[in-house]
Amino acid sequence: MSQFRTEHDLLGDREVPNEAYYGVHTLRAKENFHITGTPISTYPELIKALAMVKQAAAEANYQLGHLNEAKRNAIVTACKAITDGALHEQFVVDMIQGGAGTSTNMNANEVICNLALESMGHKRGEYQYLHPNDDINMAQSTNDVYPTALHLAVYRSLDPVFDAMTILRDAFLNKAQEFNDHLKLGRTQLQDAVPMTLGQEFKAFAVSINEDIVRLKQSRELMCDVNLGGTAIGTGICTHPAYAAIAVQELAKVSGVPFVSAEDLIEATQDCGGFLHVSGVLKRAAVKLSKICNDLRLLSSGPRSGFCEINLPAVQAGSSIMPGKVNPVIPEVVNQVAFEIVGADATVTMAVEAGQLQLNAFEPVIAHSLLRSMKLLENACHTLTEFCVTGITANRDCLEQNIERSIALVAALNPYIGYKAATAVATEAFSTDRNIRDVVLQRGLMSEEELNEALRADQLIQPRELCTKTR
Amino acid sequence: MSQFRTEHDLLGDREVPNEAYYGVHTLRAKENFHITGTPISTYPELIKALAMVKQAAAEANYQLGHLNEAKRNAIVTACKAITDGALHEQFVVDMIQGGAGTSTNMNANEVICNLALESMGHKRGEYQYLHPNDDINMAQSTNDVYPTALHLAVYRSLDPVFDAMTILRDAFLNKAQEFNDHLKLGRTQLQDAVPMTLGQEFKAFAVSINEDIVRLKQSRELMCDVNLGGTAIGTGICTHPAYAAIAVQELAKVSGVPFVSAEDLIEATQDCGGFLHVSGVLKRAAVKLSKICNDLRLLSSGPRSGFCEINLPAVQAGSSIMPGKVNPVIPEVVNQVAFEIVGADATVTMAVEAGQLQLNAFEPVIAHSLLRSMKLLENACHTLTEFCVTGITANRDCLEQNIERSIALVAALNPYIGYKAATAVATEAFSTDRNIRDVVLQRGLMSEEELNEALRADQLIQPRELCTKTR
Amino acid sequence: MSQFRTEHDLLGDREVPNEAYYGVHTLRAKENFHITGTPISTYPELIKALAMVKQAAAEANYQLGHLNEAKRNAIVTACKAITDGALHEQFVVDMIQGGAGTSTNMNANEVICNLALESMGHKRGEYQYLHPNDDINMAQSTNDVYPTALHLAVYRSLDPVFDAMTILRDAFLNKAQEFNDHLKLGRTQLQDAVPMTLGQEFKAFAVSINEDIVRLKQSRELMCDVNLGGTAIGTGICTHPAYAAIAVQELAKVSGVPFVSAEDLIEATQDCGGFLHVSGVLKRAAVKLSKICNDLRLLSSGPRSGFCEINLPAVQAGSSIMPGKVNPVIPEVVNQVAFEIVGADATVTMAVEAGQLQLNAFEPVIAHSLLRSMKLLENACHTLTEFCVTGITANRDCLEQNIERSIALVAALNPYIGYKAATAVATEAFSTDRNIRDVVLQRGLMSEEELNEALRADQLIQPRELCTKTR
Amino acid sequence: MSQFRTEHDLLGDREVPNEAYYGVHTLRAKENFHITGTPISTYPELIKALAMVKQAAAEANYQLGHLNEAKRNAIVTACKAITDGALHEQFVVDMIQGGAGTSTNMNANEVICNLALESMGHKRGEYQYLHPNDDINMAQSTNDVYPTALHLAVYRSLDPVFDAMTILRDAFLNKAQEFNDHLKLGRTQLQDAVPMTLGQEFKAFAVSINEDIVRLKQSRELMCDVNLGGTAIGTGICTHPAYAAIAVQELAKVSGVPFVSAEDLIEATQDCGGFLHVSGVLKRAAVKLSKICNDLRLLSSGPRSGFCEINLPAVQAGSSIMPGKVNPVIPEVVNQVAFEIVGADATVTMAVEAGQLQLNAFEPVIAHSLLRSMKLLENACHTLTEFCVTGITANRDCLEQNIERSIALVAALNPYIGYKAATAVATEAFSTDRNIRDVVLQRGLMSEEELNEALRADQLIQPRELCTKTR
Repeated sequence: MSQFRTEHDLLGDREVPNEAYYGVHTLRAKENFHITGTPISTYPELIKALAMVKQAAAEANYQLGHLNEAKRNAIVTACKAITDGALHEQFVVDMIQGGAGTSTNMNANEVICNLALESMGHKRGEYQYLHPNDDINMAQSTNDVYPTALHLAVYRSLDPVFDAMTILRDAFLNKAQEFNDHLKLGRTQLQDAVPMTLGQEFKAFAVSINEDIVRLKQSRELMCDVNLGGTAIGTGICTHPAYAAIAVQELAKVSGVPFVSAEDLIEATQDCGGFLHVSGVLKRAAVKLSKICNDLRLLSSGPRSGFCEINLPAVQAGSSIMPGKVNPVIPEVVNQVAFEIVGADATVTMAVEAGQLQLNAFEPVIAHSLLRSMKLLENACHTLTEFCVTGITANRDCLEQNIERSIALVAALNPYIGYKAATAVATEAFSTDRNIRDVVLQRGLMSEEELNEALRADQLIQPRELCTKTR
Repeated sequence: MSQFRTEHDLLGDREVPNEAYYGVHTLRAKENFHITGTPISTYPELIKALAMVKQAAAEANYQLGHLNEAKRNAIVTACKAITDGALHEQFVVDMIQGGAGTSTNMNANEVICNLALESMGHKRGEYQYLHPNDDINMAQSTNDVYPTALHLAVYRSLDPVFDAMTILRDAFLNKAQEFNDHLKLGRTQLQDAVPMTLGQEFKAFAVSINEDIVRLKQSRELMCDVNLGGTAIGTGICTHPAYAAIAVQELAKVSGVPFVSAEDLIEATQDCGGFLHVSGVLKRAAVKLSKICNDLRLLSSGPRSGFCEINLPAVQAGSSIMPGKVNPVIPEVVNQVAFEIVGADATVTMAVEAGQLQLNAFEPVIAHSLLRSMKLLENACHTLTEFCVTGITANRDCLEQNIERSIALVAALNPYIGYKAATAVATEAFSTDRNIRDVVLQRGLMSEEELNEALRADQLIQPRELCTKTR
Repeated sequence: MSQFRTEHDLLGDREVPNEAYYGVHTLRAKENFHITGTPISTYPELIKALAMVKQAAAEANYQLGHLNEAKRNAIVTACKAITDGALHEQFVVDMIQGGAGTSTNMNANEVICNLALESMGHKRGEYQYLHPNDDINMAQSTNDVYPTALHLAVYRSLDPVFDAMTILRDAFLNKAQEFNDHLKLGRTQLQDAVPMTLGQEFKAFAVSINEDIVRLKQSRELMCDVNLGGTAIGTGICTHPAYAAIAVQELAKVSGVPFVSAEDLIEATQDCGGFLHVSGVLKRAAVKLSKICNDLRLLSSGPRSGFCEINLPAVQAGSSIMPGKVNPVIPEVVNQVAFEIVGADATVTMAVEAGQLQLNAFEPVIAHSLLRSMKLLENACHTLTEFCVTGITANRDCLEQNIERSIALVAALNPYIGYKAATAVATEAFSTDRNIRDVVLQRGLMSEEELNEALRADQLIQPRELCTKTR
Repeated sequence: MSQFRTEHDLLGDREVPNEAYYGVHTLRAKENFHITGTPISTYPELIKALAMVKQAAAEANYQLGHLNEAKRNAIVTACKAITDGALHEQFVVDMIQGGAGTSTNMNANEVICNLALESMGHKRGEYQYLHPNDDINMAQSTNDVYPTALHLAVYRSLDPVFDAMTILRDAFLNKAQEFNDHLKLGRTQLQDAVPMTLGQEFKAFAVSINEDIVRLKQSRELMCDVNLGGTAIGTGICTHPAYAAIAVQELAKVSGVPFVSAEDLIEATQDCGGFLHVSGVLKRAAVKLSKICNDLRLLSSGPRSGFCEINLPAVQAGSSIMPGKVNPVIPEVVNQVAFEIVGADATVTMAVEAGQLQLNAFEPVIAHSLLRSMKLLENACHTLTEFCVTGITANRDCLEQNIERSIALVAALNPYIGYKAATAVATEAFSTDRNIRDVVLQRGLMSEEELNEALRADQLIQPRELCTKTR
């Protein structure tokens, strides 16, 4: 038996390896696009999404009487197998490809077709019994299948991102509780400011991440509008008037995602705004996470000549030349993930802008960028939680010393002595290397009792009734 | 009478011009920041927002008994005057400034104070009667005032953006109706594709813009969460426990914007995520608008050796050397606005990432970028509507010829003759320079009657029942 | 006498204000482009560059016998007056404009024409005696004039940037000398590392800036290749074979810049790579300056609970609520300038990519971005020098304490006791809160004499012969 | 025999798989950084560069008498083997990692050490005979090794990029020659402009690419300045005064790259400006390539309702629904590569800005971005050459028709009839659907002979003597 079978397309005949489930279209694309070395199979969610879209389309075609039961059954079975993880290694085309995803769509059509052919008792390549274009791709175009599948893949890929962010948020919340009564000096513009607790500081990290979870969830909703049924340019050519509604409904059923038809399929076919929106919110989450990591690195700077307020757990030796050095390697890697995601958003921005007329031909790089960014963010959150946040400890001595010698406490005296007098106190305290308390008392600005009350640090971390007299 | 008055701050005495409503803090900031040449007064909405925040704070302080009635009245009156447009020229500090907006806040404090002093019968600079920090800034910090005012300024500055986008959307909708029955060839990847109407094409532009209006409106809601009352770092130092709620409520009242207190004032004081979110959605709107302008330029390419499908109105001579040349100058300027907004988002991204610990010191450049981007987008939409879209006409002859000689029509025959046979037809038609109809008939693939029905162009722009037989 | 004169273009007649030196083309452009509110007159170097290009062209046309002496004299006189500063306020078109700069070119043509007409004894608008297109623009197109003028404007605008960077570099060098013998702890990854001097730290800032001056100077050379003489698309239509060479030579003469003709005028007319190159190197300089400012802010963090190694001069009160607070406002504003320049590079990148076929229509936004970035960088350097660097002082006590208690010094013992033993020493010193010296002696790893020699801090800031034994 | 050996670091003992050539530091890093899934081994040039740096350091240490001959021989042999391709699979750490590349450096130290140990007759892990830190890393720090190796890796990785760009340039040059006499209409702003040849158009593509080769080669020179010998922070701690010079010289010898010591090793250790410079020039090359691909897609738009001037070779079926459709998939994939490279530059920009004090901890993401961008650019150029440019053909009929009916030819009459009259001719020709020739003759503006001469298209593609009369 030959190791190859012959397949045909508009360019002529080609030998396809017999063991391949993909066909001539995939083969040519594989050869045409040696670009990133990252095949579609790197992103299982995209493959699963393609299979679900194909299954939904087959169901719709069957219900409309355009596909017979045998074919429908074979297609559905093949799609389910792929959704369950089968044959992902057959998705061999480079993620970044020309053709608006046509090669990815044809890769899916061919693999599904050949798997289905086998289940029908035929051999791979016997397309007279079941055809990649006429049957698997019936009533479809790359131009509705690919973006719809990408909507689904993005939607589902965000689930583990939310999980990772939630676990990270909770890790910060736990630390916030642990550090609840650790008074410290807040800082604005890297300069000593007024008191707060380390718990408040860590709670803010948790709140910040939670806010991004909420925003990402909101923006994910944009993925629910799909152009399935629009086919080539959104006009629905080659489809039955009832097809789009049925196909979208079937897709919602098989995927569990509440898909609806976009308002205007022509617009939806050319518009990649939703992807850019999600990319922008991913970028938001990434840079905010980067800011948190910057803070962790600042607060743990030292161990003796820095802020020294917290200790990050040591996860590896820090230096090949400086023995005993422990570096904040985990926050640092998260910073770098954030920079990657910022870069990916620039890529998506260029790609979205470059769409022309009825289609955006650059969806593959959008797909690649988004799927990569989500995976990076997920990995970064898990890494940060597990190897860093859960093991953070506080340097209570340092925190307390900082409070005691702080000049910035004088802000709490504004309501008592006014901004002008307080400025003079601060200036003198700094230039004479004394503390606020001494200067205020020496100047006779307040009684000792008043001052004690006004400067009770545990009172300074929240609003309080006594703090302002009528002026 | 002297032309100067003497004011004092922590650096010592300074002569302030007597006619100035601003004071020593503003004067120093004016000298320190020779950066962009763009003073705060370039953005009236920011000044108005500052005045409204100061008014709300004064009301809250009065209600809590911390400010007496005379002072409150004087402050409120001054704020209202500024909200109504008075003294904007007194906001002289550069928009891009160090200090997290402190200079902007002090500029507002000083101008309001001196205006209020006059209404109380005092002279400018007689701060013993009313003080910029102790009274105007009472229970406030730059760190809650500036971001709160910026939230308000962004919120309100989006109103004219929405107006401009809506007018543009409607202009496209009008054209869509006008071009409703103009059949044309759609294009994917710049290659001839299947039919549609020019009306459908223009409707997609309108839908695209409308989608961005909706998304911008949604993201604007993020501006309603404010940290007013958080003061220096969000702990509310120097405020009464009831202050934040009252101040926010008063701000909602005076501004008409449904403000609420952010969930965690400490987080809200350091987090600029909301600004980045709005920036990202502005970028989305901008690049989609750029794509539309690219399309307009493509469709109007020619006048004889291009796509030649539409004509843009001539608004100026196109060339200094090529007489009679008319260029798509209006879409081109809108493209450039989009590039500016993409750049501004990069700026905002860097600035948001750079925040440290309890504050983002880089809010001034965020403010500048966002306010500029919104103004640019507003101007671009008006310009595009008025000088371009409303005057667009269609080249009906060209549109029709394109349909007639199109090979791409063969896609409509998929359901009748299958993808493989259709591919052969297309290939032959192209290589022999004939049309689809002739090749199909010659090959005997369909009867003339069938073919006529299948290729009725007016049927090809939407789904239809007859198009697919059971396979 | 009427307040208006009538001028004519391909769209018909228009009333132009009589006092205007610009004409109908400028008038229409002014009305068409309400975009940024930044007129051409904001950038005098661009106006001067246009005048010099027009002068060079007139000289070339005269030498070739295409322009008579009277016209040539009038044009040259007008151009020189504008180069000397006259009539800049007549350059009223928005910097961001459609049409690839045609409106800017026509604005120059018209202003020069009307000024020259006056000198010839005619009235403004009497174009029968001297024509904006036929005479001022003779043998020219916007498509060679505008980019050539922009090359010149960028070239010359870099001079004050170099001055500002040089002054800043020297300020850092002065500080380096001043801090020459201030030993301190270096830091990698914000963690305590091995010793250096504060002088070395500041010298590195100077070297870094100097490197950027060199790189910017190198990339400026790219501006010397111009497409003048290429006219509309680089083929030189409407020019004499000798024209390009003469015009470029005249331009070199009048401007003092060593201009040469680009290798391929067609390529040069469509390629904006040189601008993107300069933009990228400006971005490089900006982010490196931002890094330096980050360092200044870190090193001056405190005043009591930070790194506290240096003091930045106080230039204004730092806080509206925290009396006596002094913030690093100058480095902060420079950071923001850097973020602006990064954004501008994103804008230029988009614009350069968007060029099509024989021309890049988006040169105006490139011009605007580059000219703005250069001005910002110049202002930032002066501001940083004057208001910050020259006034920096060192906290010698703090620097010395850091060295004394440093664990990181153990790195100096690698050559004596090996990485493994040194790691154990560091770990023990940290966990028992002791210094390196004690642990090494207690463990008997080195003699006191050896140790004293090995840890002489002044020896640790450079290579030294004794440091490594043969292994 | 056990499957594991025990190794030790500052965190304690760990079991390392016996077959592994890497050790405990690599193992921990592998576990800490589950980020991109892209191990160091993806970039052989980086591994080779590390080996060459280690070899050079060993030679220097040997020459200075710090390393004995046996060790030196073993190390050099191991390094050469790795440079020749051995053990690359042992470089298992994720490319994006915290710690400024320490894990990559330690991975190299450990693999080299264990390979050398074997050659010395010892077992892996017997570090008492040869130590990863004390011997392989002698007189080195990650902070000089990693950036030096990255300089080398970037330098060498550019060689195949230059090859690919050169081949592409030559392919365009060949086409330029082939299309040398194909007259066509140039276009500015997508509007018909003046004549040129298709050969000129393709030559401009070649010139553009060549320019970028030159610029990239120039910027590559920046990679020749290295900080080897600076060790931890550039002060050269733990090195002999002669070490840096020898090590750099040895590195130049082994690599063939003309390395020199950077002017200031402290500055060089913290400054990533060179990488950003190269990244910026790569971006320049990428967006210019993208512009060329945009042009190819425009010129080949059609096949019947577009510009239709050239045909790109068909490399795969274009559509899953539109039979016979051939799409410009190769230029499209190159566009996407450009968008990736733009994104990577944004990543590098963020990373360079984020460096702090004596080190940039984010070099790993810089490495990853640069190495990926270069590989993408190389692949894109080869793909574009092989699958697209070499097979491009011209539609001569279409090109000629465009010239004949062009209105834009009127520009050639400027020197004869003036801009004003020419404008009137163009306007009439367009509105009455006639050609220029007829209108000029009818208006009696020129004689037929004059006109024939003036409009000889083959004369319009370059300057010519007769074209301008004296005015």
